[in-house]
This record gives sequence, C-alpha cells and structure tokens, in this order.
Amino acid sequence: MDFMKPETVLELGNIRSALVRMEDTIVFDLIERSQFYSSPSVYEKNKYNIPNFDGTFLEWALLQLEVAHSQIRRYEAPDEVPFFPDQLKKPILPPINYPKILASYSDEINVNSEIMKFYVEEIVPKVSCKQGDQRENLGSASTCDIECLQAISRRIHFGKFVAEAKYQSDKPLYIKLILNKDVEGIENSITNSAVEQKILERLVIKAKSYGVDPTLFQSKIEPEVIAKLYKDWIIPLTKKVEIDYLLRRLEDEDPEIVEKHRQ
Amino acid sequence: MDFMKPETVLELGNIRSALVRMEDTIVFDLIERSQFYSSPSVYEKNKYNIPNFDGTFLEWALLQLEVAHSQIRRYEAPDEVPFFPDQLKKPILPPINYPKILASYSDEINVNSEIMKFYVEEIVPKVSCKQGDQRENLGSASTCDIECLQAISRRIHFGKFVAEAKYQSDKPLYIKLILNKDVEGIENSITNSAVEQKILERLVIKAKSYGVDPTLFQSKIEPEVIAKLYKDWIIPLTKKVEIDYLLRRLEDEDPEIVEKHRQ
Repeated sequence: MDFMKPETVLELGNIRSALVRMEDTIVFDLIERSQFYSSPSVYEKNKYNIPNFDGTFLEWALLQLEVAHSQIRRYEAPDEVPFFPDQLKKPILPPINYPKILASYSDEINVNSEIMKFYVEEIVPKVSCKQGDQRENLGSASTCDIECLQAISRRIHFGKFVAEAKYQSDKPLYIKLILNKDVEGIENSITNSAVEQKILERLVIKAKSYGVDPTLFQSKIEPEVIAKLYKDWIIPLTKKVEIDYLLRRLEDEDPEIVEKHRQ
Repeated sequence: MDFMKPETVLELGNIRSALVRMEDTIVFDLIERSQFYSSPSVYEKNKYNIPNFDGTFLEWALLQLEVAHSQIRRYEAPDEVPFFPDQLKKPILPPINYPKILASYSDEINVNSEIMKFYVEEIVPKVSCKQGDQRENLGSASTCDIECLQAISRRIHFGKFVAEAKYQSDKPLYIKLILNKDVEGIENSITNSAVEQKILERLVIKAKSYGVDPTLFQSKIEPEVIAKLYKDWIIPLTKKVEIDYLLRRLEDEDPEIVEKHRQ
C-alpha cells in the first residue's frame, strides 16, 4: 500500500489485496504463538511488580515497544493504530507528512482495547500448545502476542480505508444514511456475505498450508481456530470500525454538500 | 526446548527438532521482510541524526528492542544472544536461575556482528521486493529485519548446544582434539554432509509451501534464496560457533580429567 498516493489507496482492489496479504501475516504470527503455553500470568493485572506501572505484563511489554516504535514514526502511518496513544514519544526522524486520506478524526476510531480483550480471553487459550504457565517462556509468549495483536489491529482498523472508499464511491447514499443515523442501512451497505464466506474458506486453506510442516506433516495449529477468529471477532470488529468511521464522516465534509442532501 | 531440564536439552533428537522448527520461523520472517524495499538508508551509518547514537538506524532500533527485552529476561535464556550485550538493562522480573547446561564462557561466543554483516550485505538485497528506499516503510523494513536477525542469531548460536552434546557424548575424542588444537579434526567430527544436504532440500520445500499464497498461487519469495542463505552463511557460521565453543571447552573441565587424557 503506497500511502503517498492517496488515489491508489482508496481503490477497493488494492485494499482487498492488502487485506489478503495481512491474512498470511496473522496466520504466521498465530502459528508462532502456538509454540508456547497459554501463560495466564502474562495477562493478569499487576501479577508482577513492575515499577511505576499499573497493568499486565503483556501491556507493559507492548508499551515499551510502542514507545520505541513511536520514535521511528510507526504511528504516523495511517494504517497503524497504537494501543497506548497517550504514552508515545515524538519521532527522532523528520515527519513524513502523509497526504490526507482518511477523515481528520480517524485516529479517534480505536478499538484496540476490545482487540486486547478478545485476543487474551478467546484466542490465546485456543492457539496455545498447552494451558498454564511455563515460567521461562513468558517473555517469548508475550513477544508473539505483541506480533499477533499488532497484525490483528492493523487488519481491523484497515476498515477505515474500506469505509472511506465506500463513502467516496457513493456520497449521496452515505450522506443520507448518516443523516438518518441509519446504522442498519450502513451495515447492510458494507456487508458482502459472499466475500466473508470466501475469506473464511481461504483462511482454512492458508492455515493448513502454512501450519503444517511439509516435510514432517505435523500440524502446528488448528485451521478452524483461525477461521473462527475471523468469523467471531475480526470481521465483526472491522465492521464496527467501518460503521463508527462512517457515522462521523460528515464532521469532515463540506457543509454545503451535506445541506444539499438534507432536503 | 525445556531449559529447566538440562538432560533433555542435550539430547541430539530434541536439538534437531528445535532446529527444524526454527527453519519455519526464519522462512516466515524472510517472507515478511520480502514485502518491503531493500531500504539501504536503514543500514547506512549515521544516515539519520539520532541523538547520542553512533551507528545505523537498524542498530538503533534493535538496541531499543534489546533494552526492552533484557528487562523481561530475554537474555537470561541460554539460547538468546544479544547484539548489544554491553548496553542491556537489569530484568524487572526475578531471575529464572536456569540450571547450568553450557560452559561458563558460553556468553562470550557471540558471532552477531558477523550475522549483522552478511544479513545486511547479502540477504536483504536478495529477499527485498525492490531495490531502493521507500521512505515511509523504513520502520516496517527494520522491524522485519530485527525479527530475521534474532531468528537467525538464535539458530546459529544453537550450535553451542550441538557442540556441548557432542562433547558430552565422546569426551575422550574431544579432549584429545582440543589438546591438539586440531581444528580440522573438530570440524570433521561435527560435520554431516548428508544432514546438511537434507536441510537445504527441506528449506526449498518449506519456502515453496509457506511462500506461495495457496489461493492465489503467487510466490512471495524465491525458495533458492533461502536455501543459499543456509548453505553460504547459516551452516558455516553455526560450525564456527561449534568449533569456537569446543576449542575453549577444557576451560570448564575438571583438570584431572584433562590430565588423564594428556598422556
């Protein structure tokens, strides 16, 4: 995705290719996580005595990484959404000045706390090789968790680009739906059940292909777990992002254009 | 690998399984890196004005991560070797107290500067999707680089476990070779050309299996590049680690046992 060329970013074909490629990353990351125990102590608030920190071990480790990555401009990119937006540092590199692609309030659409919750409660127990703690691998497990969380977060918040592309492609329709606060209408307009079904089928194929050692025929992960993760969490939360984004879209629209559609 | 049970760590079957699993991680990480440009400015010394730092952008980013991970005990683990051992912080968690598995000088066997050199000079240009810089992806490229470097480093330094296992399995042979400083003899004793050939064949199969989207049939990486990386760099440097480790092994041996073999 070349964010320096806004016109290409909002082509639905390009967005779809990016989403398909992200599936591979998510599958890879979950396979890597599956090497380790579920490690519940990593997700228990203040289980470890970390100085000046109130939260879980995973949150602490993720915060360290976000602080480091904020300095190398990660969160300037329109497709990167931090878990701790209030605790980042200024980049040590000159700013990139991305052209405007998304609405100005876009950074405020952030479902990372929901992602953290379902990931820890629903995904970790299902992908881990065993339940329980393995003390010397808590760091490795949380490092994998961070990769998974960041990849899932990027995938879900990519809904903003989908939403913006749809808005641009049919302003009259969306302005009307938004003015009427017609959440159901918006949801219907962004839902394509056939595409969703295809995603789930593709994920099972990918999980089988990447998750089985082709020389040992040993499976590292259950393909259905990954499909279910998409079905129950990633797809619905992506829709939430799209709807939340669209519901506020008129904040960033020319008032005259809005007025024209009000009648 | 359960480092709390030293007797299982030094079983060659377990070491081999761990090495085979690491191939998957390395292949995954290189596939992820292949999404980005070669990004030469990331590897150019002092290209960016980073305050209080003398080195490349990649080195700076890697150092930030190592400092964070040192606090969560990453470098206490006997299979993790830092690139910046002198700049780490103390863990914020209680120490794990791993049982002794490797010789006491083991941390001094560190070929990470050689790994950094061949990775940057030989691997990056071959796996990147395009040559040149893409300014807004320098952070993403270096984040992938860090994953690749850490996975390759872990794989190569695992040679220490191979070396220790071989030493334990035939002390009389190795003590004699070491006393005679017989580098060639040591190299011959740790080399198995049939196994090496099999690794290369397996890598091509894995790179094809993981590197091709099974629903699009698009290849993300050239399988031969990964096999060549192992052939030219990973296997030879692993041997170097094994030999360096063995050449010093008597520093950590009972002098009486050494004496007995001197005659």
